[in-house]
Amino acid sequence: MEDLKNYIEANKERFLEELFSLIRIPSISSQEEHKPDMIRCAERWKELILAAGADRCEVMPTEGNPVVYGEKILSPDYPTVLVYGHYDVMPVDPIELWNTQPFEPVVRDGRIWARGADDDKGQSFMHAKAFEYMLKSGQLKCNVKFMLEGEEEIGSGSLYGFCEKNKEMLKADIILVSDTGMIATDTPSITTGLRGLSYLEVEVTGPNKDLHSGIFGGAVANPINILCQMIASLQNEKNEITIPHFYDDVLVLSDEERALMAKAPFNLEEYKKALDIKEVHGEEGYSTIERTGIRPTLDLCGIWGGYTGEGSKTVLPSKASAKVSMRLVPNQDSHKITELFQKHFESIAPAGVTVKVTPSHGGEAYVSPIDMPAYKAAEKAYETTFGKRPIPTRSGGSIPIISGFERILGTKSILMGFGLGEDAIHSPNENYKLEHFFKGIETIPYFYKYFAELMK
Amino acid sequence: MEDLKNYIEANKERFLEELFSLIRIPSISSQEEHKPDMIRCAERWKELILAAGADRCEVMPTEGNPVVYGEKILSPDYPTVLVYGHYDVMPVDPIELWNTQPFEPVVRDGRIWARGADDDKGQSFMHAKAFEYMLKSGQLKCNVKFMLEGEEEIGSGSLYGFCEKNKEMLKADIILVSDTGMIATDTPSITTGLRGLSYLEVEVTGPNKDLHSGIFGGAVANPINILCQMIASLQNEKNEITIPHFYDDVLVLSDEERALMAKAPFNLEEYKKALDIKEVHGEEGYSTIERTGIRPTLDLCGIWGGYTGEGSKTVLPSKASAKVSMRLVPNQDSHKITELFQKHFESIAPAGVTVKVTPSHGGEAYVSPIDMPAYKAAEKAYETTFGKRPIPTRSGGSIPIISGFERILGTKSILMGFGLGEDAIHSPNENYKLEHFFKGIETIPYFYKYFAELMK
Repeated sequence: MEDLKNYIEANKERFLEELFSLIRIPSISSQEEHKPDMIRCAERWKELILAAGADRCEVMPTEGNPVVYGEKILSPDYPTVLVYGHYDVMPVDPIELWNTQPFEPVVRDGRIWARGADDDKGQSFMHAKAFEYMLKSGQLKCNVKFMLEGEEEIGSGSLYGFCEKNKEMLKADIILVSDTGMIATDTPSITTGLRGLSYLEVEVTGPNKDLHSGIFGGAVANPINILCQMIASLQNEKNEITIPHFYDDVLVLSDEERALMAKAPFNLEEYKKALDIKEVHGEEGYSTIERTGIRPTLDLCGIWGGYTGEGSKTVLPSKASAKVSMRLVPNQDSHKITELFQKHFESIAPAGVTVKVTPSHGGEAYVSPIDMPAYKAAEKAYETTFGKRPIPTRSGGSIPIISGFERILGTKSILMGFGLGEDAIHSPNENYKLEHFFKGIETIPYFYKYFAELMK
Repeated sequence: MEDLKNYIEANKERFLEELFSLIRIPSISSQEEHKPDMIRCAERWKELILAAGADRCEVMPTEGNPVVYGEKILSPDYPTVLVYGHYDVMPVDPIELWNTQPFEPVVRDGRIWARGADDDKGQSFMHAKAFEYMLKSGQLKCNVKFMLEGEEEIGSGSLYGFCEKNKEMLKADIILVSDTGMIATDTPSITTGLRGLSYLEVEVTGPNKDLHSGIFGGAVANPINILCQMIASLQNEKNEITIPHFYDDVLVLSDEERALMAKAPFNLEEYKKALDIKEVHGEEGYSTIERTGIRPTLDLCGIWGGYTGEGSKTVLPSKASAKVSMRLVPNQDSHKITELFQKHFESIAPAGVTVKVTPSHGGEAYVSPIDMPAYKAAEKAYETTFGKRPIPTRSGGSIPIISGFERILGTKSILMGFGLGEDAIHSPNENYKLEHFFKGIETIPYFYKYFAELMK
């Protein structure tokens, strides 16, 4: 692989231009108006996969946004790697906090600034280029399949059915994913656990119309006050979630495992400084790494109700709403948790209001074994390019489909993420370090090499 | 006054057209973009007051929106009535709930539908027409002054200074106001008490940017969760406000007074039915009428934070905000309450967030004596046109400047309101019953008549 670095250096500009052509398409899956952009983005991926050397590539319809599927089958004797990624992105609100246009990528300070720069256009596109190199240089000893979906950010709703229908086509020895992060540029890590998710929307309705807060205030349940009280009651003073049976299935780690986790490099002062907060805040009795790694959460992602414009309006509003995200850990079932939430939330509503709970999407937690060949291949690949053995870590994030892959296809996944905490994914000013983009393209070929060797 | 009804009947269409010319100007005082509309509305009022027969009328500058002042001085021997009203209106959000255009008045089902139809363009304009009749018919035995301000809905900030500067000009025996309601069409009432107000905005900031709710959730204070917890903690399970010293100055009514209040006609079942609620909700130990009449409140008028768009976004937001309205009762001081809130709210913020409290506006409660000549004149006037003696009631609403008038000008106010609970003031589909508009124009002349007789 001596020419790998030279190949990347020689093609840098082209790689970026190709990536930018994906980023420029505003493929926001949660917003109906972007439906045509989903198709455009899928079509563009198809062109890029074919250009990279795949035998075939198709934009395949699903019940929702299409899936891009491509493959290069070299030999029945080779192990098969299914590369999974997603071409959809998060919304860009609050748009006023962006320093640049979210869909016009800008390279500045050694980073690409744009929605999707990291999550997941930047990370998934590294695979197209690593594959291109391996193929062109005649070193590819794996069969490679590509599957890019357009609904990851809204729960991968259509991909489950797509997998059910295409089990044979998607057969593989491992699913290779770059949609997570690593600890730091000088501290490579491999994500071995992901949290599950239950996401839902709640609406509290009081009177049938907005009322004058003076004439009715004090005598009629105010849906904002009530929503706040209901939300507040979901956590106790130890920041434990109070929904009955919420913790019943949570996998409890042994003291030994917790001691191991505590060895991961983590600097609390730097963490606080980066976020500009005086104190971290979470469940009593757990460290910051544990709070995001092995413990479930209940976070409000949005809240709205009444008058939110300039100045004052003395109104007792008719409705108040919120979006709730619960991150789940191994053994918790997202459907069960959604039901528990729904039942509990409805039960605590006072008589003066009515409550509507609308489940949005969910997915299960995932734990990846560190003794499988793919893990060892990934470990060796990072060690080769970063000069350090990667640390296995548990991410607080969720990729709901990963546990679905195991259930439906019977295939494990290896999460080779190259993102950083500072990449501001899902936030304004998302960015991706150029160094990491190119380092990813350099590392993935070694994964193919070592994986083929280990699977022989 | 035999010709009064005929005069109204003959001029109905003109009265409405004149009122509509005021309504069509979107004079929303809380929104900067409507600054020019405030001037236009004041100028239109000036034309209408002059046309009604005033000797002089001027649009007088203040630090904020101008005040329209007009007068007709007939004799130094006559008592002087200062008519106060406001030409500014509330915002129209949520605009999608309106059945008609808020600033294009429509007459349907015996009602005028528009923002300001009741509050306060409809109600204050009755005075221009009652004055016009009394003057034209040679029956006016009072000097009449008009003062229309453009900041009532945002706390009358500039009117206090205007009153200080123009004490002599505004000298009067009574201030006559139509900006309140009555119990029902067949149950006239006079408002003898108004609540005070403290209105403020709070902002809770957690991390310095929106974060991924998976990667950081559980370890970083979520400003929406925290805001909900802080808001919820402001009331206990008895719905009492928990801010220390909040109730210290509240005027406690005797059992006798409460027994008297309880005699006012009130049908709880109809009240609930009109609002489409199963139960009323408020401070333990008090009736609905007491909860809005003699007890202070803490209501959220608006809340916002995080992602509030379509679909889902898994974000741990940087900020969450709310607008808080506290209605106050006699003896509570709005500045003191604002300070108590601010101090307490800042003190309960956990270490993981910072809190900003921005006072918006306030005003004091007001109680009007029922033994003064103006009350007796108003009582007789309603009795004449409605055939029933009006009931003295306490409104839950606030007109902060009313207590200011007493403090600065030393003049009491009489609140002859003709609105109804169903008028949806401050809400979508504000409306004013045509019958009440014309009944107001018919009743006010009797007030002048009886007031002049009693003051002789």
